Amino acid sequence: MTRQTGARPKTKRGIERRAKILAAAEQVIGEKGFNAASIADITRAAGTALGTFYIYFSGKDVLFRELVQDMGRATRSQAAERIAGAANRLEAERAGLEAYLTVVRDRPMQYRIVEEARFVDPDAYRDYYMAFGKVYAEQLEKAERRGEISAGDAEVRAWALMGIAKALGERFVLWEEEVDIERVVTETHAFICKGLAP
Amino acid sequence: MTRQTGARPKTKRGIERRAKILAAAEQVIGEKGFNAASIADITRAAGTALGTFYIYFSGKDVLFRELVQDMGRATRSQAAERIAGAANRLEAERAGLEAYLTVVRDRPMQYRIVEEARFVDPDAYRDYYMAFGKVYAEQLEKAERRGEISAGDAEVRAWALMGIAKALGERFVLWEEEVDIERVVTETHAFICKGLAP
Repeated sequence: MTRQTGARPKTKRGIERRAKILAAAEQVIGEKGFNAASIADITRAAGTALGTFYIYFSGKDVLFRELVQDMGRATRSQAAERIAGAANRLEAERAGLEAYLTVVRDRPMQYRIVEEARFVDPDAYRDYYMAFGKVYAEQLEKAERRGEISAGDAEVRAWALMGIAKALGERFVLWEEEVDIERVVTETHAFICKGLAP
Repeated sequence: MTRQTGARPKTKRGIERRAKILAAAEQVIGEKGFNAASIADITRAAGTALGTFYIYFSGKDVLFRELVQDMGRATRSQAAERIAGAANRLEAERAGLEAYLTVVRDRPMQYRIVEEARFVDPDAYRDYYMAFGKVYAEQLEKAERRGEISAGDAEVRAWALMGIAKALGERFVLWEEEVDIERVVTETHAFICKGLAP
């Protein structure tokens, strides 16, 4: 699973250029799909020379993998930030769901790219969700020990809760013209709270 | 959305040949993916002549759409059958989840093909889940009127429950060597029951 990935820049300028290419790739691959998006499309969108791409990534497949990994890290750290202030697990569930649906609304290309990873790079796809599921299950275990939720299989529950968020993001955010995150979160949170309550 | 699809056979022999091609397509497209799977691969797997394909389908995209539609109809009718004997909605939730995970175990290619439809034929993908969600929400509404579950937004709940089934199918059936459907269903059903209880 530790495939060769491009060089990690050490200078500020290099870090910025690499980030710019990744941001452009998110837009271009998200819109066109992996196969149709060319490296030239990506560097054009990033406003960099084609050759610059190869300083950081040895190819489009490597870029794609790093993009999915970066998205996973960013989404996990955003979620952790958003739920950090929650008084207990049930409040954290609400904050986490709201944060997730907001990311789907604001960065719909991310959703699409992660889903495309299932076909383009199945390992990256699996790693993305397994990493999420692991953190989620650990949090549920801690909450169970603190008596904030009932006893249960933390991993099964973590995946059930992730599945809820994913399906709602697709149906009520990606597919809706008029997105009402608040309504969906309130309704779902009532269901989750009763499901998990001690 | 009513795109031209191939001719529907009327004879028994025609119906069987068309079904054989669809079954072969499920296997071949599921394994190779839509782009890599050729019509020749599919007819070879079906044991029919290449020309026979075009009697029933005008092209690979039309075949794919019909395959997704057929899978949707079959899965919905299987689910309806499996939950028909349930005494109430909460029992039906258990039977439905178990039936879904069993389909994922026995026909993993279906899961993959429906997910690939998101990219190959977004309308077919959306129709597939919207049809499911509609039936599901109607059942929840009826159950609410019968007092079997608490009051709530049936569509949001239907999608939350579908999301649970999908995520668990992926994590604990598709990705596991040792599949223990019973354990996953029991754990999840406890959560769902408490979440929906009146």
